[in-house]
Amino acid sequence: MAASYILLLSALLALAASPAMAGDPSALQDLCVADNTSDVFVNGLACKDPKLVKAEDFFFSGLDKPRNTTNKVGSNVTLVNVNRIPGLNTLGISMARVDFAPYGLNPPHTHPRATEILTVLEGSLYGLIHFQFNHGTRNAVALAALSSQNPGAITIASAVFGSKPPISDDVLAKAFQVDEMTVHRIQAQF
Amino acid sequence: MAASYILLLSALLALAASPAMAGDPSALQDLCVADNTSDVFVNGLACKDPKLVKAEDFFFSGLDKPRNTTNKVGSNVTLVNVNRIPGLNTLGISMARVDFAPYGLNPPHTHPRATEILTVLEGSLYGLIHFQFNHGTRNAVALAALSSQNPGAITIASAVFGSKPPISDDVLAKAFQVDEMTVHRIQAQF
Amino acid sequence: MAASYILLLSALLALAASPAMAGDPSALQDLCVADNTSDVFVNGLACKDPKLVKAEDFFFSGLDKPRNTTNKVGSNVTLVNVNRIPGLNTLGISMARVDFAPYGLNPPHTHPRATEILTVLEGSLYGLIHFQFNHGTRNAVALAALSSQNPGAITIASAVFGSKPPISDDVLAKAFQVDEMTVHRIQAQF
Amino acid sequence: MAASYILLLSALLALAASPAMAGDPSALQDLCVADNTSDVFVNGLACKDPKLVKAEDFFFSGLDKPRNTTNKVGSNVTLVNVNRIPGLNTLGISMARVDFAPYGLNPPHTHPRATEILTVLEGSLYGLIHFQFNHGTRNAVALAALSSQNPGAITIASAVFGSKPPISDDVLAKAFQVDEMTVHRIQAQF
Amino acid sequence: MAASYILLLSALLALAASPAMAGDPSALQDLCVADNTSDVFVNGLACKDPKLVKAEDFFFSGLDKPRNTTNKVGSNVTLVNVNRIPGLNTLGISMARVDFAPYGLNPPHTHPRATEILTVLEGSLYGLIHFQFNHGTRNAVALAALSSQNPGAITIASAVFGSKPPISDDVLAKAFQVDEMTVHRIQAQF
Amino acid sequence: MAASYILLLSALLALAASPAMAGDPSALQDLCVADNTSDVFVNGLACKDPKLVKAEDFFFSGLDKPRNTTNKVGSNVTLVNVNRIPGLNTLGISMARVDFAPYGLNPPHTHPRATEILTVLEGSLYGLIHFQFNHGTRNAVALAALSSQNPGAITIASAVFGSKPPISDDVLAKAFQVDEMTVHRIQAQF
Repeated sequence: MAASYILLLSALLALAASPAMAGDPSALQDLCVADNTSDVFVNGLACKDPKLVKAEDFFFSGLDKPRNTTNKVGSNVTLVNVNRIPGLNTLGISMARVDFAPYGLNPPHTHPRATEILTVLEGSLYGLIHFQFNHGTRNAVALAALSSQNPGAITIASAVFGSKPPISDDVLAKAFQVDEMTVHRIQAQF
Repeated sequence: MAASYILLLSALLALAASPAMAGDPSALQDLCVADNTSDVFVNGLACKDPKLVKAEDFFFSGLDKPRNTTNKVGSNVTLVNVNRIPGLNTLGISMARVDFAPYGLNPPHTHPRATEILTVLEGSLYGLIHFQFNHGTRNAVALAALSSQNPGAITIASAVFGSKPPISDDVLAKAFQVDEMTVHRIQAQF
Repeated sequence: MAASYILLLSALLALAASPAMAGDPSALQDLCVADNTSDVFVNGLACKDPKLVKAEDFFFSGLDKPRNTTNKVGSNVTLVNVNRIPGLNTLGISMARVDFAPYGLNPPHTHPRATEILTVLEGSLYGLIHFQFNHGTRNAVALAALSSQNPGAITIASAVFGSKPPISDDVLAKAFQVDEMTVHRIQAQF
Repeated sequence: MAASYILLLSALLALAASPAMAGDPSALQDLCVADNTSDVFVNGLACKDPKLVKAEDFFFSGLDKPRNTTNKVGSNVTLVNVNRIPGLNTLGISMARVDFAPYGLNPPHTHPRATEILTVLEGSLYGLIHFQFNHGTRNAVALAALSSQNPGAITIASAVFGSKPPISDDVLAKAFQVDEMTVHRIQAQF
Repeated sequence: MAASYILLLSALLALAASPAMAGDPSALQDLCVADNTSDVFVNGLACKDPKLVKAEDFFFSGLDKPRNTTNKVGSNVTLVNVNRIPGLNTLGISMARVDFAPYGLNPPHTHPRATEILTVLEGSLYGLIHFQFNHGTRNAVALAALSSQNPGAITIASAVFGSKPPISDDVLAKAFQVDEMTVHRIQAQF
Repeated sequence: MAASYILLLSALLALAASPAMAGDPSALQDLCVADNTSDVFVNGLACKDPKLVKAEDFFFSGLDKPRNTTNKVGSNVTLVNVNRIPGLNTLGISMARVDFAPYGLNPPHTHPRATEILTVLEGSLYGLIHFQFNHGTRNAVALAALSSQNPGAITIASAVFGSKPPISDDVLAKAFQVDEMTVHRIQAQF
């Protein structure tokens, strides 16, 4: 079974260079595990009292489960950032599992605080211009690594057409060079 | 006349927080003026021989001239980055003048390597969600400062619909939840 | 009137490369608006609870008003840093308006945490060696952008001769190679 | 088959916090693909002429192949850093596939320029104190992501006992509190 | 006496380039003196209320006293980091005095957050591969400067053989290619 | 003799917090020894071909020799930066020996790219506000460590009154609030 798995591991390593290229500030101590209950807000996250740190602060399980991809775009991103693994605080790295249905799309997006390297575990993807598309007839799965504890994500279509508060119709009509009717129709999807 | 100018200086300082938040690497010497003729390519730009640096490497003139805004969006960005002022190399800062016709729009965009602070010199602008819109009946002018020598700019609509090579129709149709006909119509504008 | 303003906009963009060249640490989340009432002191400023952030945290108005330049040096710096715009926290950028009377001087200074790019809006200035001097007979106005949320400023003459506690006379006499009487005379001005 | 793969995907995400915590300097342009033929040596790698960049500079294939683990420690690290994917230059990220035979060990090590997040794809590993050990009777496979284009690796035992030039016997005997005979015996293995 | 001291000052400046090469994040204000009594935990240390800062926060005395080197390795490191000088907080620098008995050894180690420059004040040292050894018959003294307020130190032998909780015997036996008996014997020393 | 030296080692560790607080960009490889003969100019220094690196690239000797302090200020700074030790390139650290005659002064200055920690080896110094003064009747010696490979130094009096090209008299007279005659007299000393 291990063998079968390895045959399925994709022959493709796609580097999805997100256009934003920041680096998190360096750590100043060995451990600064995020304290999710703190009422102190700082750049990043306040740390737990070091005496209260536990081994579980560094683990996350359950990434082996396939995600539900029955949605409009046919993909599902499971982000494992500092909110999921408190021990990632100040370490400048995080990851994600991305599931794709056949013809599923992880739509065009940017990560404002991270670069990314993507490993295709199963299936094959068409990518590189900041989106990934499963052009095959089977499911695809990829693992992404991102150079920030909290990379962020701006999915362009929903950020623009699903913004809250909404960007006014005339602005979007001018930006995308369409009539306001089309803008309305697109906005209704987000 | 100076007085009249000052009355026109806008009462509004708009902070346009671009979503990308990198900081350029620090300088390692007093001067590293960009050498635009070098055939050495590095992260940033190679420097001129310090003995050849001139005062003009630190100046740029002509920002006082209004720019032509007769285009589809009614705005014009004059970026003054390290390519225009070689002395900006390694300094981590640059600026831009933005001209707006009445109802002109600087369309939704991100700067992958910079944050931004925007001063409205004339007129008034509707902004903050990463675009600026002149909602008045007169011209508007703004000065932007950006925290990188080479902030970059991704104008969302043209990056997505005017990409070269083009992103395929089915991908865009799925991303924006429209039919491929509409995608074609939008692509034709870029 | 817009036209007259634009004619007055100076033909000169002066880059005032301050000798200090730090870059603020990168942001780790989308928003970390400074909480000026916090009793938590950290590198930079603690953030407000994100649920309490308001649009006004990103604006500052009143930069259109000319400043009073009737002082010993004939200039006036209006700094708009993170203390004035809480939304600048973690963004690594700020700005200033500088007013100059005829023959007014922004005296020699350094910014310990920032580089600077200076746009002359009106009049003309003699500059570049870390000071600006209005050598004309009219007022001058400039906008400075600085690559830190809190650039700091060390005005050399007052830091040295107006230091509190004062630097002793014999130290200053030796540093500036003058007699102690002259030191006393200079110190009395600060 | 996809299903069987997913069942094998480990339930464990182990964060291997390497003790070194640097962050690569930020990128200063959109692309700075490493030029492996350049005779210019800089911090990082010089870039190719942007006109010569190809899509292949961003891909690496073959990670699906199991590696040979018949060696003294029973593990094999396939590092995919900037030397393997030139497009990683200035992006501050890289990755590795690690294969483990039953009871195989990725011996204690540090990454001087990177933090790490480790996903167990198959089998289960005992880890966290900077080594990983396959304590099961089947093969194990993990993917590591590292926050540098060139993370480096110092495998402690071989760096200390296999150093070239060798560290002298009396130094090692004192450091490890053993007799010089034991030092000799260990050195002979590296 | 000053003269005699200067004759003893070593003719050797040894650069001990530790393999880890991080830089602390930049300071964001003039002073952020560490508050050792704070119950707020952040990356680095929270600052004292600036109104409570005293001159003593920037000093440390007593480095002139020779340290006791009667221990297993014949050396003694006196680290002066941010815990000893609160004013070092956010400054990215610290130092250490290292005393060596004849044939004393500062055993192989790494600094996960700092580089190092070492000045030999007295005696002479054999060094450079991340340890220092007094190969002379007299005491030796060195001053180290480190590029972090909290450089950390991983002494390899004790981190590996004296780890708490202990790394299991079979892991260490495999890593160092010795039998488990030898592992036990080494562990007993730490 | 060692004992006499240690008695002379000052009881005072003075932290001279220079107001500038940058951190050099992180290293991207194990070694990037400066190539002082390169005609490639970059931020920092180009590296030698790694195959040509020698042990001597990491050493500097001669710091034990007292320096001549018979000059106007009675002090002498011996800076050991990347130009003296090529191996410091990309390491972000450097050091200096400072000799003081009785009543000698290291005049007020800033380091634009570094913070500093100062160890008084002999004598005692009055310091902290960015200068050091030997207020005793014997020589004093200090070692400074600086958080940059090339910290730079701006000695305020000579930068202002000895600038080349000179800052005009009226600017300096206004900045220091003295008459132009006094400015002339001071300038003549630099």
